Amino acid sequence: MTVSSNTPLVGIIMGSDSDLNIMQDAAAVMQEFGIPFELTVVSAHRTPLRMINYAQKAAERGIKVIIAGAGGAAHLPGMVASVTSLPVIGVPVKSSNSIDGWDSVLSILQMPNGVPVATVALNAAKNAGLLAAQIIGTANSDITKKMDEYKVKMNQAVLDKAGKLSSEWPNQFD
Amino acid sequence: MTVSSNTPLVGIIMGSDSDLNIMQDAAAVMQEFGIPFELTVVSAHRTPLRMINYAQKAAERGIKVIIAGAGGAAHLPGMVASVTSLPVIGVPVKSSNSIDGWDSVLSILQMPNGVPVATVALNAAKNAGLLAAQIIGTANSDITKKMDEYKVKMNQAVLDKAGKLSSEWPNQFD
Amino acid sequence: MTVSSNTPLVGIIMGSDSDLNIMQDAAAVMQEFGIPFELTVVSAHRTPLRMINYAQKAAERGIKVIIAGAGGAAHLPGMVASVTSLPVIGVPVKSSNSIDGWDSVLSILQMPNGVPVATVALNAAKNAGLLAAQIIGTANSDITKKMDEYKVKMNQAVLDKAGKLSSEWPNQFD
Amino acid sequence: MTVSSNTPLVGIIMGSDSDLNIMQDAAAVMQEFGIPFELTVVSAHRTPLRMINYAQKAAERGIKVIIAGAGGAAHLPGMVASVTSLPVIGVPVKSSNSIDGWDSVLSILQMPNGVPVATVALNAAKNAGLLAAQIIGTANSDITKKMDEYKVKMNQAVLDKAGKLSSEWPNQFD
Amino acid sequence: MTVSSNTPLVGIIMGSDSDLNIMQDAAAVMQEFGIPFELTVVSAHRTPLRMINYAQKAAERGIKVIIAGAGGAAHLPGMVASVTSLPVIGVPVKSSNSIDGWDSVLSILQMPNGVPVATVALNAAKNAGLLAAQIIGTANSDITKKMDEYKVKMNQAVLDKAGKLSSEWPNQFD
Amino acid sequence: MTVSSNTPLVGIIMGSDSDLNIMQDAAAVMQEFGIPFELTVVSAHRTPLRMINYAQKAAERGIKVIIAGAGGAAHLPGMVASVTSLPVIGVPVKSSNSIDGWDSVLSILQMPNGVPVATVALNAAKNAGLLAAQIIGTANSDITKKMDEYKVKMNQAVLDKAGKLSSEWPNQFD
Amino acid sequence: MTVSSNTPLVGIIMGSDSDLNIMQDAAAVMQEFGIPFELTVVSAHRTPLRMINYAQKAAERGIKVIIAGAGGAAHLPGMVASVTSLPVIGVPVKSSNSIDGWDSVLSILQMPNGVPVATVALNAAKNAGLLAAQIIGTANSDITKKMDEYKVKMNQAVLDKAGKLSSEWPNQFD
Amino acid sequence: MTVSSNTPLVGIIMGSDSDLNIMQDAAAVMQEFGIPFELTVVSAHRTPLRMINYAQKAAERGIKVIIAGAGGAAHLPGMVASVTSLPVIGVPVKSSNSIDGWDSVLSILQMPNGVPVATVALNAAKNAGLLAAQIIGTANSDITKKMDEYKVKMNQAVLDKAGKLSSEWPNQFD
Repeated sequence: MTVSSNTPLVGIIMGSDSDLNIMQDAAAVMQEFGIPFELTVVSAHRTPLRMINYAQKAAERGIKVIIAGAGGAAHLPGMVASVTSLPVIGVPVKSSNSIDGWDSVLSILQMPNGVPVATVALNAAKNAGLLAAQIIGTANSDITKKMDEYKVKMNQAVLDKAGKLSSEWPNQFD
Repeated sequence: MTVSSNTPLVGIIMGSDSDLNIMQDAAAVMQEFGIPFELTVVSAHRTPLRMINYAQKAAERGIKVIIAGAGGAAHLPGMVASVTSLPVIGVPVKSSNSIDGWDSVLSILQMPNGVPVATVALNAAKNAGLLAAQIIGTANSDITKKMDEYKVKMNQAVLDKAGKLSSEWPNQFD
Repeated sequence: MTVSSNTPLVGIIMGSDSDLNIMQDAAAVMQEFGIPFELTVVSAHRTPLRMINYAQKAAERGIKVIIAGAGGAAHLPGMVASVTSLPVIGVPVKSSNSIDGWDSVLSILQMPNGVPVATVALNAAKNAGLLAAQIIGTANSDITKKMDEYKVKMNQAVLDKAGKLSSEWPNQFD
Repeated sequence: MTVSSNTPLVGIIMGSDSDLNIMQDAAAVMQEFGIPFELTVVSAHRTPLRMINYAQKAAERGIKVIIAGAGGAAHLPGMVASVTSLPVIGVPVKSSNSIDGWDSVLSILQMPNGVPVATVALNAAKNAGLLAAQIIGTANSDITKKMDEYKVKMNQAVLDKAGKLSSEWPNQFD
Repeated sequence: MTVSSNTPLVGIIMGSDSDLNIMQDAAAVMQEFGIPFELTVVSAHRTPLRMINYAQKAAERGIKVIIAGAGGAAHLPGMVASVTSLPVIGVPVKSSNSIDGWDSVLSILQMPNGVPVATVALNAAKNAGLLAAQIIGTANSDITKKMDEYKVKMNQAVLDKAGKLSSEWPNQFD
Repeated sequence: MTVSSNTPLVGIIMGSDSDLNIMQDAAAVMQEFGIPFELTVVSAHRTPLRMINYAQKAAERGIKVIIAGAGGAAHLPGMVASVTSLPVIGVPVKSSNSIDGWDSVLSILQMPNGVPVATVALNAAKNAGLLAAQIIGTANSDITKKMDEYKVKMNQAVLDKAGKLSSEWPNQFD
Repeated sequence: MTVSSNTPLVGIIMGSDSDLNIMQDAAAVMQEFGIPFELTVVSAHRTPLRMINYAQKAAERGIKVIIAGAGGAAHLPGMVASVTSLPVIGVPVKSSNSIDGWDSVLSILQMPNGVPVATVALNAAKNAGLLAAQIIGTANSDITKKMDEYKVKMNQAVLDKAGKLSSEWPNQFD
Repeated sequence: MTVSSNTPLVGIIMGSDSDLNIMQDAAAVMQEFGIPFELTVVSAHRTPLRMINYAQKAAERGIKVIIAGAGGAAHLPGMVASVTSLPVIGVPVKSSNSIDGWDSVLSILQMPNGVPVATVALNAAKNAGLLAAQIIGTANSDITKKMDEYKVKMNQAVLDKAGKLSSEWPNQFD
């Protein structure tokens, strides 16, 4: 497997283009890690056959992980997972008439035995991207190395903030 | 439309045969009202193509209303509704690992604009049956007449109970 | 049954005129599908006898489906359903002092056995209209045909959006 | 006003005789305080006209307070309150298919402006009875005196339990 | 009992003056019905002894009903009810750091057996005022008459709105 | 401060003796750590003056920490905290008519600014005891040493279980 | 990568041996798919250093995926994910004093940006195992083939049940 | 123990500097009570080893109480408590993608037996500071005296507000 090829390894789909402002965070992670990906709109409820089709062909097209985001009665991640043997990551999106996000969270998370969806936090498309990178990384040491570096950078960013804070708020720990 | 024919007018489907003890309440209403129906297992997550197939062919087979019951991340009613133009009634079933039934209720109820599901109360397959009968009744005066009688019987049953209660607990209203 | 007649087939009622900005979405669907309808204010709690009266006379006036929207302790849909044998569609409206919409959702959804309300999502008056059209369509092939076309248009709209998105975000599926 | 008369001052009603095992706690309080009362079954959804009738005639029959208990989408207390000017006490009953009691609590509590229901805790028919007695007591010093004594007895019962507990678990406060 | 006297019959208290913008709705009802009342700040947590003192003396000062509003862990209504034999109406106020109002609702509603609080809807101080008027009305036919008129006015206001609506949205019911 | 004295350092109180089976877990921790304590019943709602009295005198009697457990609309911990300057630990007890424990959790946790209650998990009287020991330990090195040992024992108990498990379920980590 | 080796590819850990009856469902999937795995107890709160140590060494020991199950304030999955770059699957376990499972679900799901946990449904250790197999399968065609077969078997099992059901409940679809 | 020394007695930590606008309320209390403290950023998920390190060394550095604030899946307070024997106060912070604060509340509150966290209300860093002061006060009469005065001031502030209110809203109690 070579991550520099043009064949997308990660497919990012969403129920509506109104979810794009959330879901592009997953794409940004793909770009940051140099993982080929694709992004499109696939609606479980308005384009059910397109959804089935997408899920059926994903593996043979070289996709390794699918990230699916949806809001409300969010059926996209679970339905895609019902068709493909690929790991599917679900992003609950808090849509406009959502009941505080509970609907999308529970619709994605509470899948029956046999058909898992790897659910991340509400609106957490960035974490969906990172999880996809970790999955790609299980067979790609370059990605794993980048993930290790990513964690080091996160750690350092906190230390930097702690350092800046210490001028106003001194502590005896650092 | 003749309700005495053998062609099912109502299709009752459920995600698992473990939902049968709940969903047969809908069938009992069909029998009580003399409405031809069929009942089978169609799983959104374990038989997605069967589900699509069922929904695509329902109208041409003469089905007028589909009643779909499912638990947890309950995608069956909404996905069936995405394929067919028939009215779909959703029954949220409280399954064993459900989070108090909230998952199935929200997964069925909170459908996006464009694809309604007529949701009834948790485990309320009986009400799904009655709603299907009311829908059939919009073009069938026999069924409507039976529904009127059904309401009269319900009313009388309460009066009977009130009457029995009045021996121990007198009231000055009746 | 002729949908071009002036007799309303669908009655849209709401507990308060403050619900109109939500509930007119149902009316817009009626207009789009060419289904004669009426719309008025009927409050369960401030005009209980008007509500009983409305429900009692709806069927004989030719109404086939009632759409009732209300917020908070939303009793209008269920109480109308207790009086009439017509199918009643309930729209939970998220009112100003609502506890996140849970009150109207549960007050409408959790009807006891014997008296169903076809509940749609929070604020989803549009879906209530579509569900009413589907019910009317069970005995009217013109409406069903329009519903089929409506679904085709929804599907195409997603494809169009996917097409537009593909200039910035290419995918190898389409 | 004389509480020894036979005219009921408090009307206890419930949506179903299955609520009797809860609602008789309210009756027991009436008996303990010597307040004439009546108890019967009035269902909002199965006997809507009986409910309207009961509410309309309650005041002229001498009823001062109505206690109404119901479960699920519990419309009885609020609908009775919409018809009568008497104070109505609502008891949310946790019925069998309830979503943890939230449905009956919110259906009774979240009444719109203009039509209050005095809601007590889930299944708390005893407290409904005590509240009715307090209301009667606002114009009846005998009842108020009994309520004062009731509070003294509750206080003493705790002291007695504290006393008994102190043999095994000594404290230096008492 | 003469409602024209200056002795307050209803005591309106609140945990903080920040609740005044909500709680003055109760006062407005008192003014509308001509019921003498008083209003002040009594905090369960910041002035516990003032609270005990207020509750102990309310009855002897002629108060007939106490309306208590509070937010968050709202202990004021229940604690006042623990001291006095008067009926206590609790208004759950949605305060700034509230968890969607659930905290104040449950803290006020779920009182243990023996000590009821007549709970109204979230922020529904107006309904608390109306409930107080209904309670005063159980022994005061003037107030009851005003309440009957209030209900007539509410009913008429809906009819007026329905009338206005009918120019744009005709219906065949009215 | 000497922990071997007989003066109680920790006061364990509960709203009802029915809470004893939960609250005695706190007492067991006191015994295990050798911290003098007392335990009694103090009801916020049935013995409000006893509660005020208990809270007012606790500090002068030598009490350093108060543990208060209660269910439903659980006002005991917060009201005690309103009177005393001692740290108060609140234990939400899941009582019989509780709405899944949410009522006691929110009634204890969501205290307003100025009057904190140190809330532990639902029914977690054991943790309340450990927290009290930690607080006593801030000025008592013997208790802190015991707490360190307690943590070592907990750690070892997990290792022992892991060891036992490894015969059936081998792992390459240990 | 050879799945027949003895080096575990999947590490299954849980906060307490009381979670074993749930978590062994994940192990059963590993056995069914022939994926080497290990299983042990690692408590975030009672053995924090063991947890850090386990997470730090997992990748170098050849582990590809970690499955972590925990209940209540379930910190194990998220804390393990904070240390390792491997994908971590979280199983919310409904423990005895859980608030209906919400605590473990939210503690595992709602991870901050930068540190994802692939969360599955409440108690769904079986799905955690299947998700781990799918992840292993992204670079192992044998496992993917088995997963395809697994899905075929699930599909067939539903058809068999539908077939059996059809003797008592005929349908015209099959 | 001398509170005038420069050694911090209270360590205030938070998962992100975005929590500072909430958490500085705890620092303000420390300043008001003259208790030496320190404040810094320690992230459970981005700096897990820093967190372990902070918790391990806190006691030996003279810290008596740790206040830890975090949002979402808030693991910081519980994980710190797993390492140290000091009392740990947890502040649930309502972060941007929080599910109404429930996630942080439950992640902090519902700790397993053996490892308590003293949880305060959502965003209630001020109460966390006051609780820390009360804990310090258990062995420091100066702090306790200040706390007594603080309570007197809170009481007086309410009386002042009541006084001001009485010009517009007279009452016969004061």
